Amino acid sequence: MAARPTILVVNGPNLNLLGTREPDIYGHETLADVEALVRARASELGYDVDFFQSNHEGEIIDRIQANRGVASGIVINPGAFTHTSVAIRDAILGVSLPVVEVHVTNVHAREAFRHHSYISDIAVAVLAGAGVAGWVYGVEILDRKLSA
Amino acid sequence: MAARPTILVVNGPNLNLLGTREPDIYGHETLADVEALVRARASELGYDVDFFQSNHEGEIIDRIQANRGVASGIVINPGAFTHTSVAIRDAILGVSLPVVEVHVTNVHAREAFRHHSYISDIAVAVLAGAGVAGWVYGVEILDRKLSA
Amino acid sequence: MAARPTILVVNGPNLNLLGTREPDIYGHETLADVEALVRARASELGYDVDFFQSNHEGEIIDRIQANRGVASGIVINPGAFTHTSVAIRDAILGVSLPVVEVHVTNVHAREAFRHHSYISDIAVAVLAGAGVAGWVYGVEILDRKLSA
Amino acid sequence: MAARPTILVVNGPNLNLLGTREPDIYGHETLADVEALVRARASELGYDVDFFQSNHEGEIIDRIQANRGVASGIVINPGAFTHTSVAIRDAILGVSLPVVEVHVTNVHAREAFRHHSYISDIAVAVLAGAGVAGWVYGVEILDRKLSA
Amino acid sequence: MAARPTILVVNGPNLNLLGTREPDIYGHETLADVEALVRARASELGYDVDFFQSNHEGEIIDRIQANRGVASGIVINPGAFTHTSVAIRDAILGVSLPVVEVHVTNVHAREAFRHHSYISDIAVAVLAGAGVAGWVYGVEILDRKLSA
Amino acid sequence: MAARPTILVVNGPNLNLLGTREPDIYGHETLADVEALVRARASELGYDVDFFQSNHEGEIIDRIQANRGVASGIVINPGAFTHTSVAIRDAILGVSLPVVEVHVTNVHAREAFRHHSYISDIAVAVLAGAGVAGWVYGVEILDRKLSA
Amino acid sequence: MAARPTILVVNGPNLNLLGTREPDIYGHETLADVEALVRARASELGYDVDFFQSNHEGEIIDRIQANRGVASGIVINPGAFTHTSVAIRDAILGVSLPVVEVHVTNVHAREAFRHHSYISDIAVAVLAGAGVAGWVYGVEILDRKLSA
Amino acid sequence: MAARPTILVVNGPNLNLLGTREPDIYGHETLADVEALVRARASELGYDVDFFQSNHEGEIIDRIQANRGVASGIVINPGAFTHTSVAIRDAILGVSLPVVEVHVTNVHAREAFRHHSYISDIAVAVLAGAGVAGWVYGVEILDRKLSA
Amino acid sequence: MAARPTILVVNGPNLNLLGTREPDIYGHETLADVEALVRARASELGYDVDFFQSNHEGEIIDRIQANRGVASGIVINPGAFTHTSVAIRDAILGVSLPVVEVHVTNVHAREAFRHHSYISDIAVAVLAGAGVAGWVYGVEILDRKLSA
Amino acid sequence: MAARPTILVVNGPNLNLLGTREPDIYGHETLADVEALVRARASELGYDVDFFQSNHEGEIIDRIQANRGVASGIVINPGAFTHTSVAIRDAILGVSLPVVEVHVTNVHAREAFRHHSYISDIAVAVLAGAGVAGWVYGVEILDRKLSA
Amino acid sequence: MAARPTILVVNGPNLNLLGTREPDIYGHETLADVEALVRARASELGYDVDFFQSNHEGEIIDRIQANRGVASGIVINPGAFTHTSVAIRDAILGVSLPVVEVHVTNVHAREAFRHHSYISDIAVAVLAGAGVAGWVYGVEILDRKLSA
Amino acid sequence: MAARPTILVVNGPNLNLLGTREPDIYGHETLADVEALVRARASELGYDVDFFQSNHEGEIIDRIQANRGVASGIVINPGAFTHTSVAIRDAILGVSLPVVEVHVTNVHAREAFRHHSYISDIAVAVLAGAGVAGWVYGVEILDRKLSA
Repeated sequence: MAARPTILVVNGPNLNLLGTREPDIYGHETLADVEALVRARASELGYDVDFFQSNHEGEIIDRIQANRGVASGIVINPGAFTHTSVAIRDAILGVSLPVVEVHVTNVHAREAFRHHSYISDIAVAVLAGAGVAGWVYGVEILDRKLSA
Repeated sequence: MAARPTILVVNGPNLNLLGTREPDIYGHETLADVEALVRARASELGYDVDFFQSNHEGEIIDRIQANRGVASGIVINPGAFTHTSVAIRDAILGVSLPVVEVHVTNVHAREAFRHHSYISDIAVAVLAGAGVAGWVYGVEILDRKLSA
Repeated sequence: MAARPTILVVNGPNLNLLGTREPDIYGHETLADVEALVRARASELGYDVDFFQSNHEGEIIDRIQANRGVASGIVINPGAFTHTSVAIRDAILGVSLPVVEVHVTNVHAREAFRHHSYISDIAVAVLAGAGVAGWVYGVEILDRKLSA
Repeated sequence: MAARPTILVVNGPNLNLLGTREPDIYGHETLADVEALVRARASELGYDVDFFQSNHEGEIIDRIQANRGVASGIVINPGAFTHTSVAIRDAILGVSLPVVEVHVTNVHAREAFRHHSYISDIAVAVLAGAGVAGWVYGVEILDRKLSA
Repeated sequence: MAARPTILVVNGPNLNLLGTREPDIYGHETLADVEALVRARASELGYDVDFFQSNHEGEIIDRIQANRGVASGIVINPGAFTHTSVAIRDAILGVSLPVVEVHVTNVHAREAFRHHSYISDIAVAVLAGAGVAGWVYGVEILDRKLSA
Repeated sequence: MAARPTILVVNGPNLNLLGTREPDIYGHETLADVEALVRARASELGYDVDFFQSNHEGEIIDRIQANRGVASGIVINPGAFTHTSVAIRDAILGVSLPVVEVHVTNVHAREAFRHHSYISDIAVAVLAGAGVAGWVYGVEILDRKLSA
Repeated sequence: MAARPTILVVNGPNLNLLGTREPDIYGHETLADVEALVRARASELGYDVDFFQSNHEGEIIDRIQANRGVASGIVINPGAFTHTSVAIRDAILGVSLPVVEVHVTNVHAREAFRHHSYISDIAVAVLAGAGVAGWVYGVEILDRKLSA
Repeated sequence: MAARPTILVVNGPNLNLLGTREPDIYGHETLADVEALVRARASELGYDVDFFQSNHEGEIIDRIQANRGVASGIVINPGAFTHTSVAIRDAILGVSLPVVEVHVTNVHAREAFRHHSYISDIAVAVLAGAGVAGWVYGVEILDRKLSA
Repeated sequence: MAARPTILVVNGPNLNLLGTREPDIYGHETLADVEALVRARASELGYDVDFFQSNHEGEIIDRIQANRGVASGIVINPGAFTHTSVAIRDAILGVSLPVVEVHVTNVHAREAFRHHSYISDIAVAVLAGAGVAGWVYGVEILDRKLSA
Repeated sequence: MAARPTILVVNGPNLNLLGTREPDIYGHETLADVEALVRARASELGYDVDFFQSNHEGEIIDRIQANRGVASGIVINPGAFTHTSVAIRDAILGVSLPVVEVHVTNVHAREAFRHHSYISDIAVAVLAGAGVAGWVYGVEILDRKLSA
Repeated sequence: MAARPTILVVNGPNLNLLGTREPDIYGHETLADVEALVRARASELGYDVDFFQSNHEGEIIDRIQANRGVASGIVINPGAFTHTSVAIRDAILGVSLPVVEVHVTNVHAREAFRHHSYISDIAVAVLAGAGVAGWVYGVEILDRKLSA
Repeated sequence: MAARPTILVVNGPNLNLLGTREPDIYGHETLADVEALVRARASELGYDVDFFQSNHEGEIIDRIQANRGVASGIVINPGAFTHTSVAIRDAILGVSLPVVEVHVTNVHAREAFRHHSYISDIAVAVLAGAGVAGWVYGVEILDRKLSA
């Protein structure tokens, strides 16, 4: 049976705390809940999912590089690395994959240093404030992009 | 029969050209297509829709004010007014309704003056680059917000 | 009987919501209350009043132009147009009338983008935070200016 | 008889006061004088003219959109909207017509906020300080552009 | 007989020259005239006045501190200290009294360094350009604030 | 026979390459073509022309100074010196002659460092993007200025 | 026997070189000396210490997360990560523990890029230039905070 | 008996209100409490203390100058003068004494204008947020500096 | 015998330390030496001198005001108040006297915050780095100005 | 046999993709090719090479620290860490080794955020755009520096 | 015998002082030494060299223009003109030749105004701090570029 | 007879117009008058003078270089080159001579672009607004510097 295309879902630092850290801001759903939602929707659309979280910038770069020629697209919630990592930007450019950037909260309504992203200008789409649905929307947007 | 709650969908200047203006950037779907998609999804979720477009800032403010105590939330694609209209911001604050900001394209990848929005920091969510699906996602996000 | 001189009182976008919008910030008095106060004080000082509100920048420009050679001075609360409209500034300069700029709240204590005004440097006086009394003070200041 | 191509001439806020407002700055010629000059020169070059002025940003956008597929080019004196309207910029981009930007006075010698234009970087040419001849030059430049 | 509440009126550096210094800018009324006007209006409204001027920042701070628990509010024309004194700001915060900031001239139409105030964002109201009436308006605004 | 008034036409660095350098940007007409056009139009209007080009800032200053009390006005295309030469600005101020600034291309649509000019705020008019016609328009504008 | 509360002491990149690297700037005491001092003082005050150093941002985040619900507070010398790591800031916020920021040298007297800290505005206290005593002071300040 | 070395402790404007002004921010300890704590610790370490507070910048400069060749070091809490007084900076430089800068609260977590200090880059150490212990730490740091 | 005109010589904070403070920077001559030099040269030119130094901004303002209608001009070395005192600027403007600004050292070669002066743009001349001769030059420049 | 001196060659994130990632920008030579070239030239000059690449900032810091007292100098292509890592800068300073900074492409012609480097001002030399020869030039420059 | 291709080597102001001016910064080798090195290496690679130095911006522009269609590439050390000359940039663009920018010292470690170059973004490569070897490297890089 | 030491006096662009250009700003004295004054005073102090003016930056650099090892110091009025020439700065540094910078008018009271000088931070002294006396003061300051 032919393999299904894969979507790499990358989650940056502290997202492993989702659902337990400041739930009034980030909600009660955990990253495991996100993973289940994402896998379900991706499967409906015909994709496998490589779901990954790390607090280490280097591990995120390694994982993105490892998906070169493997995954068909990336949904990334870079967490705090959004604002500081040129290296993740370069890794994404290096693997030439379409990327959707997702944030649980509306970063535009938070501290000024969260208003700049090193990923946004190379992304297909940027979603902020949609909660856990953001990941699912990211998969759908990638799917439309890949099917276009 | 009791009235269903209403979502006001506001579209700013030049969005009446959607589908015909620079289709390689904005795609081929027209604003009428968007309206049909939005009405369909909103209806599934139990909402009526007040769908509106204008090239006149004043008419947009009037329409937002007219929905005070009428609509339950707003999905807005402010177009170019995103970057220049404090008055629309104040109208939204004045009617105390939750708002989702939507852009067809990824404004973060365009000219620098499109990176600032007078709406984003008072929005529930901000979606850029999801194409016409952005309006539908906006309705869904509002629905979850209103149901929370 | 000779006509009394006229003061044009211009109110910008969302001021029609006064008294109902965020009353803890803007107070409970409506724009109709303001109009009554202004007409009473102006009449004591010997002036007629052309009292006007619009959410449309163009209508405000039209009304200012229409008062060229008609009114003796302007009291303006430009609302959000304070911060964005060069065209209203030019209209005021075009009719060569003295102007007093009034804000219900202390804009200096609000968002940074409310700290700049396109009107202040061409105004006789700028009043912020005096509530509805601001309009009345504006009329008195114009009267002293016109009597000087 | 075949129709002649049309040039849309757009004039922004307060230009209806031309010749009467601050004549030492703007000169004594009125917008009617400008219209006569423009029609004469355009006719010599073989063009009809759609000559338009408004203090309303929305009406200007509507008129530009209405000339999509109708006019062959635009001469615009955006007045104060030069510095504040992204929406007029987008309307011009939306109709894909060449545009020449004209200012009666040398805006570069005036207030700092008049030094930035949202139109200049998408214009064929920018003329400032040529007085009423600026409109005529604009027509000539468009003609050369269209004949090239 | 019960004591009447007191309003502290503070005047910063060079205001002792009022009426004699650059009268075309500051007018011909002296600080003594201001004091008389303020005392008269305050008395009508039921207040005593502590009227004070100094060229010394430290003396102004001392006087504000001395009115802690004594005065009911402050009307301050900080003069040049408006733009440079964090210490006066802190003194006002330290005595927890409502303050109205007053300027004889329209500071917004003067040098750029006069556009920033260390007092405005903690003031009830800010009045610029109302001439000597500004102090009287300040007393009235405080009275309404205290009566609210 | 009485001498005719003279217009000095100054051309800055690299304009000697006109017509050969990047013709898709600068067109195919050479500086000799410009000179012919300018002389023809100036002659019709009754002027002699001192037509000059140099890559040396000092020579341009010398030539401007040499025209003090000689020429009646200046048309200048300062080329790259537009953005860097305070000394040419001072030379123009030093000879007290009206000046029109001309650029072949629309500099406002090019690199950011080409958006600032040390000449524009002391010029009668600034023309950018009119191609070789710009020099001719410059002569006409000077003529009207001198005849006013 | 009941466990004593723990203070997590985090040391960022290059602090393992303390005492050997540029001793004229950083002194001769090593990180082992610091650890001994900290443990001694913490023990007197009734605390255990989790003393940690890493050159890896990800390991620091992991360690902070691991102390969630375990440690009572954090003393952190983030080294160079002070100026670049939003992720460590978010980790600290994610575990909801009070933090004291410590620097061996007076960073305010060094390069401009060392004047901004992503930790300072969420810290209880910030100490710079106290040498190795800074860590001990940090423990004492935490103790007072926890005892308040 | 030989005199003991002296430490000058300078306290800037409004610090005389300590313990009574906004106690939730500044705590309940008064400046007299601080003086007692400082004198006790200094005495243990073998120092006399010249403890001084003033709301007058000039008096602070006078006192610093008077300690030239008298005191061995300075602990200063400049209060609001931190951010505005170049003259106090120059006085400290003029007497060539080591200085420790102390703030009761964490100024880095307050208004942006409190983030800049005219003293920090010439200080041995800067302590913010340690409460009244900050003064004591300052004495200890000076002692170590003087003993080095 | 008719009184000779007076020149007010004002010296700001820390200038009383001249000759003793950082002599490698400021030289070995004291302020008394300066006074002697100034009095000698002024006397030759026919002036009396009011020579004054204070560390108190308020006293400087008082002294300038006291010379209104008394002195003919001011030589001022504002010391650190150069960079921070709008009030001294206003005092000078208030007495309408010509002023020469003098600095012992070349402030342009020192810290960036010493590059801005609140006095320079209202001064006849600004001298930096001429050492004690600067005061004498200041008297000579005032003399020429008064004799012109 | 005595050991030869060592040069540490550090390569930052994504450089492992060299030759395969965007070859039109980065060329077709791989990092293995670079290593061969560097080893050959270094050997000629009498050096051993410690050639290292990592996507992990922490590993790069560890490796630099490990070469303290071991290597004689560093050639570093920090990749994206050039623009974001103060910690690598501090590591280089901590080991007190001369460093040459190398970039494959001309970073000055790329995005603005690539124009700032945390390494350049502590480097012996900075080479951008020399392709793989840059590493070899770096070795030669180090050699001359070490031989000087 | 067919002519060999030529490389133009341009040296800007003050480079004629090389080897004598501040030798601790610029080294002891003179520009004649550089010329010899460059000619030797260029000859090995098959190029003639046009070696040129001038303190006059205009002469440098003239020489670059004269090499249009003559030289195959340029190695330029623009000296101080690096930071101020748009005209040299335009001359290089006008002759359409590849250029390598060379600086003797590491300009990135010097004054801030030396960090910007008008040449770097149009260069093939930028080398700073390689000493006189920089010119030779420049020739080699050009050779590879021309041979590619 | 032994030669007397020489002072080089350099005058930048447009200073040849002194006394004829805008005499209300620059006065009626010509550069010949300045030369006579300077030679007289220099002679009294024992110096020869090399007095030079040019509108060409390159000639100024050449003249400064030619005085290396010849002149003892420089008095320079760089005119407009003050604000734009890094090359003249470098020439002065290259000849290692003390320099005094002189301006006829008070540049601090003119356009903002005249507030920055590329010479001031390497000058002994900077004099602005002393008129032609400035050159004489410059010679005196150099003399004291050379005699120190």
